[in-house]
Amino acid sequence: MKLLRFGEPGKEKPGVLVNNDILDASSFGEDFGETFFETNGLQRFSTWLKQNQSSLPKVKPGVRLGPPFTRPSKIICIGLNFAKHAAESNMPLPVEPIIFFKATTAITGPNDNVVIPPNSVKTDWEVELAVVIGKKASYVKESDALNYVAGYCLHNDYSEREYQLERNGQWVKGKSCDTFAPLGPYLVTPDDVGNVDSLHMWLKVNGKTMQDGNTDDMVFKVPFLVSYLSQFMTLLPGDVISTGTPAGVGLGFKPPIYLKPGDVVELGIAGLGDQKQTARS
Amino acid sequence: MKLLRFGEPGKEKPGVLVNNDILDASSFGEDFGETFFETNGLQRFSTWLKQNQSSLPKVKPGVRLGPPFTRPSKIICIGLNFAKHAAESNMPLPVEPIIFFKATTAITGPNDNVVIPPNSVKTDWEVELAVVIGKKASYVKESDALNYVAGYCLHNDYSEREYQLERNGQWVKGKSCDTFAPLGPYLVTPDDVGNVDSLHMWLKVNGKTMQDGNTDDMVFKVPFLVSYLSQFMTLLPGDVISTGTPAGVGLGFKPPIYLKPGDVVELGIAGLGDQKQTARS
Repeated sequence: MKLLRFGEPGKEKPGVLVNNDILDASSFGEDFGETFFETNGLQRFSTWLKQNQSSLPKVKPGVRLGPPFTRPSKIICIGLNFAKHAAESNMPLPVEPIIFFKATTAITGPNDNVVIPPNSVKTDWEVELAVVIGKKASYVKESDALNYVAGYCLHNDYSEREYQLERNGQWVKGKSCDTFAPLGPYLVTPDDVGNVDSLHMWLKVNGKTMQDGNTDDMVFKVPFLVSYLSQFMTLLPGDVISTGTPAGVGLGFKPPIYLKPGDVVELGIAGLGDQKQTARS
Repeated sequence: MKLLRFGEPGKEKPGVLVNNDILDASSFGEDFGETFFETNGLQRFSTWLKQNQSSLPKVKPGVRLGPPFTRPSKIICIGLNFAKHAAESNMPLPVEPIIFFKATTAITGPNDNVVIPPNSVKTDWEVELAVVIGKKASYVKESDALNYVAGYCLHNDYSEREYQLERNGQWVKGKSCDTFAPLGPYLVTPDDVGNVDSLHMWLKVNGKTMQDGNTDDMVFKVPFLVSYLSQFMTLLPGDVISTGTPAGVGLGFKPPIYLKPGDVVELGIAGLGDQKQTARS
């Protein structure tokens, strides 16, 4: 399944993509979020969808999409999880995952504008595979970890490099501005993703390819990451793990390239859909 | 006012401390959290309390206290905000605030047990003044910042030093275990705190004083911190800013001292109440 949410910011309704049509799933009576996931919502929704699909109203194309689930308790990001990206950042390849958080207030829809913060000159992009947790996870074994995954979605882990790297410590400072976490368009359930370890991922700025990678280059894979993180904190249903970005971020160019107002950022991961953001000041 | 929540974990009811009695405020009909704060709840509750105080049932002493408000969107912590603590940590005094996050799943009641994570040998304490945000804050001026504060509470910012400092980067990894964020007993409104820049703060382990400081030693004060953070992310009602700890953490002793099962940690800040946790494995 490909779950989504559509409508004005803060007033999104649940929907689902079926045969390239967006169907309005408001009549299911629940939004997609922590309570939904922890009460076996995906299975309940799947059953309901089979029974009601033919009667659901189609949403007209071009509707605004929101993030495909409500605000999670946390967004955990994995740093330097692709070898070439670590090299372009002049940082060593980690021996165990580097983790940092991103404020959930940064979440926005997949095609909303990205806002360059006032006085910022180093706003950068990062196409990433995001894992969405399906049930409470604490001290989970790697062999059991995929049972705790609700699905996957596309994430552009926007980063202000001056805030992140030159403003006195801890990366969260450059990761948490409003609009810095476009999620979606879809939450795609694992059965609909195929092999999550072999997904093409790409990002263009103004039509020019900047990132062109594949999840098969990830140093630490999804089951390991879920298990690893669950040793340090409890993961709640709906929580997001963003698994790192391949080479080609603005920071890595010589000289670096950062976003200016009017720039158009497009990105995608095979099977998870595409995003398109326009930068504005 | 001193707001609190009492009852079993996850089933807490709102209450208020009046003349050293805990009064059951369930009949107010709202829990203390994001929606309460953003809808002018503190003022509404104050008015309601004046009208209803005499008829509220007293809660029997010894009841379990929970965190004094529901799960916030984020806990932001300030690192090395006391000069002597920076020195004992062998780190330079920051020129601007170091910030890191703590998972909100770490929140627990003020007198609940602290759980030493499996295989952990470096669980440490940090008495801290926590600021609770009262309304949405983005690019707030320092001169206006205190208008965005709902109140203050006591926080023990438990830290696993191996996870934080020796496990490959970013402090959040050692700050987020379950039970590592006891909050409370009270959310104390600013009018009831007095001068927040001059509050005695202390922490004992097994009866021995380990931390004995005062908020007047803070490098960056509350208005500056609220304003500063609001430049990097939007603060939501109920969000927590934990403002750093004075000298005397376990890490700073030679050799370091860390918690063992059975150890009793007591702490307090003048006017905000006390906490007591017992360490267990």
